Amino acid sequence: PLSMRESNLLPAKNGEEATMQFLLELVDILTNYVRKSFDRSTKVLDFHHPHQLLEGMEGFNLELSDQPESLEQILVDCRDTLKYGVRTGHPRFFNQLSTGLDIIGLAGEWLTSTANTNMFTYEIAPVFVLMEQLTLKKMREIIGWPSGEGDGIFSPGGAISNMYSVMIARYKYFPEVKTKGMSAAPRLVLFTSEHSHYSIKKAGAALGFGSENVVLLSTDERGRVIPADLEAKILDVKQKGYHPLFVNATAGSTVYGAFDPINEIADICEKYNMWLHVDGAWGGGLLMSRKHRHKFSGVERANSVTWNPHKMMGVPLQCSAILVREKGILAGCNSMCAGYLFQPDKQYDVSYDTGDKAIQCGRHVDIFKFWLMWKAKGTIGFEQHIDKCLDLSQYLYDKIRNREGYEMVFDGVPQHTNVCFWYIPPSLRGMEHNSKEYREKLHKVAPNIKAMMMESGTTMVGYQPQGQKVNFFRMVISNPAALQSDIDFLIDEIERLGRDL
Amino acid sequence: PLSMRESNLLPAKNGEEATMQFLLELVDILTNYVRKSFDRSTKVLDFHHPHQLLEGMEGFNLELSDQPESLEQILVDCRDTLKYGVRTGHPRFFNQLSTGLDIIGLAGEWLTSTANTNMFTYEIAPVFVLMEQLTLKKMREIIGWPSGEGDGIFSPGGAISNMYSVMIARYKYFPEVKTKGMSAAPRLVLFTSEHSHYSIKKAGAALGFGSENVVLLSTDERGRVIPADLEAKILDVKQKGYHPLFVNATAGSTVYGAFDPINEIADICEKYNMWLHVDGAWGGGLLMSRKHRHKFSGVERANSVTWNPHKMMGVPLQCSAILVREKGILAGCNSMCAGYLFQPDKQYDVSYDTGDKAIQCGRHVDIFKFWLMWKAKGTIGFEQHIDKCLDLSQYLYDKIRNREGYEMVFDGVPQHTNVCFWYIPPSLRGMEHNSKEYREKLHKVAPNIKAMMMESGTTMVGYQPQGQKVNFFRMVISNPAALQSDIDFLIDEIERLGRDL
Repeated sequence: PLSMRESNLLPAKNGEEATMQFLLELVDILTNYVRKSFDRSTKVLDFHHPHQLLEGMEGFNLELSDQPESLEQILVDCRDTLKYGVRTGHPRFFNQLSTGLDIIGLAGEWLTSTANTNMFTYEIAPVFVLMEQLTLKKMREIIGWPSGEGDGIFSPGGAISNMYSVMIARYKYFPEVKTKGMSAAPRLVLFTSEHSHYSIKKAGAALGFGSENVVLLSTDERGRVIPADLEAKILDVKQKGYHPLFVNATAGSTVYGAFDPINEIADICEKYNMWLHVDGAWGGGLLMSRKHRHKFSGVERANSVTWNPHKMMGVPLQCSAILVREKGILAGCNSMCAGYLFQPDKQYDVSYDTGDKAIQCGRHVDIFKFWLMWKAKGTIGFEQHIDKCLDLSQYLYDKIRNREGYEMVFDGVPQHTNVCFWYIPPSLRGMEHNSKEYREKLHKVAPNIKAMMMESGTTMVGYQPQGQKVNFFRMVISNPAALQSDIDFLIDEIERLGRDL
Repeated sequence: PLSMRESNLLPAKNGEEATMQFLLELVDILTNYVRKSFDRSTKVLDFHHPHQLLEGMEGFNLELSDQPESLEQILVDCRDTLKYGVRTGHPRFFNQLSTGLDIIGLAGEWLTSTANTNMFTYEIAPVFVLMEQLTLKKMREIIGWPSGEGDGIFSPGGAISNMYSVMIARYKYFPEVKTKGMSAAPRLVLFTSEHSHYSIKKAGAALGFGSENVVLLSTDERGRVIPADLEAKILDVKQKGYHPLFVNATAGSTVYGAFDPINEIADICEKYNMWLHVDGAWGGGLLMSRKHRHKFSGVERANSVTWNPHKMMGVPLQCSAILVREKGILAGCNSMCAGYLFQPDKQYDVSYDTGDKAIQCGRHVDIFKFWLMWKAKGTIGFEQHIDKCLDLSQYLYDKIRNREGYEMVFDGVPQHTNVCFWYIPPSLRGMEHNSKEYREKLHKVAPNIKAMMMESGTTMVGYQPQGQKVNFFRMVISNPAALQSDIDFLIDEIERLGRDL
């Protein structure tokens, strides 16, 4: 029967049986993949170069054609797609801030795509719109805004959430920019850490501020903004006659996992009447932990907060929230009142039609998987997950900080699960650390080990340079499947692959 | 066993059996929903007001709590979520541009969420990155750019795709705005039809142009831009000393389904050295039809094109492409070269790491479902779907244009599947059409019928006013499940509900 075509499936007449059979065969492929993803004897990936995949692996043909394929071939394509991909749920996948495969989150995504609707109006997404509203309120309560009042929306990712924060800051102080453009405002300047995510600079470029008007702040050895540097740079900007508008405080930086001192930054923002945004895209999850939320001390003083449940909280991609203290400002900033979508004369309370406060029109349902995970874990379940990941990173830190062949990139216990370190192969251990030759050689170690790691497919971890520091490994733990034995495995693997470099 | 908790699922030790059982129970709920969605004896929706759902329907509690729920309750929550939602795949759901539930697309989404990865690098999404590249090339070939050369990316929706077009137009003519901000450019003006989608104006506001610098163009009776009006307004803007930068030509307007005359607009853009964008978010699918693609005549002269497969082509939300004729300009406009993600010293050809050309950082995998549908239908399958939908709208048009109690909003056969009409209840038929009383009464007819339609849950269709025209129905057909009998049903239902108004 699978020599059948797509045209035999529903809505085709009598297509029900073929549809059910096809979907169940697919589910069989997917559940097998899920099972194997958690199995440590399975590889994380089976690496191939782009040209190899493009040439067609054992009949896996990526090219599109005029004629339809059989359903049988479609299922083979599905199997191949998974086969040549990367198992991001594997217990030894540590490559990105988003790792792991949460089964409830997965179930939520399957339901979301079955419902296939759009967040712009209550009319066609009544349940999801209410879930979003209740969940955002809960998140604002956790931030500490009185009664969870305020505003917010789920956006397609942290970069867009951060972009929202810059837009609404501008609207708050210079609302006429919405209609008249940037020429209606003085030269506006944004401030963010040199360790912050590049999306702040990207937003500055996109929204017409110009990336040169995004001033980078110096940090201490641990990657945290130095408040005195912020104030000095604000004064410098004011002296030039420009207008300091916005400060981004990072709560969990991408590489070091650093938390900027929010309270001290908030004092400065109040003094100079500036917007304070907290980018907790990566750190946000720590707000759920009684043990770790002190790192966010002062967050309730922020005007807006980015918080990505799809990172530390293990929600499937995409799930990012921008939360705002002032109610109504998102709509003020973005609304265009399209008559075909936001009719004022509907039979229900149209204040639930929240689409006009987005920069998007159609908007994917990102809330359901998160809501369902929250139901299934409870707030305490998220807390346990966060605490466990931080304990694991402490385990890694304790294991390597005095181990032969390792050097930590910064001193002290990491604030988040980021553990940054160099592995020094035996051949480099006796060398003068400040020599050019040593630095050049060390710079190549992490990329070399990473390349071999991917070729052997056993584990994955990220690396990068930072400022003057040559390539180092950045280990991050958000994967709920990871155990101490997986940390041990990673260290063994780095040593196995790097020994002879 | 379903009194078990989420914590019993994988990655829990011995969690495999519980995981498989839970997922299969969920799939049973989902496949039942799919089956019923295509069954005309099922209602499109079971409408409830926000306060009713918030109060909790028969135990369906939307509130989040500290403690976890049982897996059994989670499955009940899933059932309830679907129960109180809207069946957008139902053969009689015509409410939005995106309708229908494509089984292959659904399978593609289920696989995508199981793979749960991120488009920013080849490293963690090798197959999906290549699929995106090949599919974008194919789309550019269909647009008519030589050898399918150019650039592009999938974005979270048409509004963001249109925003990209404005950003790259600005970058093309005033690249220094990226670093220096809008003050580095003269006052820039964008032009778009008064019938165009509001996202162009929204982009103008967001990107720092100001919505007043988005000039609306007059249209003919059918909603198509009048080229002479464009040229007059360009000259007016130039005379004021401003810089005309960008013209958006809509290919398939939201309400009328109108196609602006691209060739005539392209002539003007060439004459004044302006960027031509074609917003084919809604119309794009017609490019796949040999019969209808002439409506896009001249599209190959555009600098950029928005095309949303998630609308007319029936791909599940979200799936929107921005296609660009000039290669490399997206990266030029948006790249920030983040070292932690786009390391130049990887072992593979890093030109496949396409994330830096996006305004996003993390990016959801929107390509797979579309690629899989293309495989399953072939290009000819999309063509058949498009032709069938346009035939159905012609059927509707022929049926009502001379029918008693109907009045068409504009003359002539619609260019797209949009059929815009007033239903005139018997009580209004004898009245003077230009009287205030008639207009006021007619304005209330569509909202009233729509409210009753939603209460009875039998079908859904959109309405809105447009310019001086009072509320009218806008019928759109993109639903592959719709038959002539469903069109007949819609008309009967409007008459049944509207008869006594």
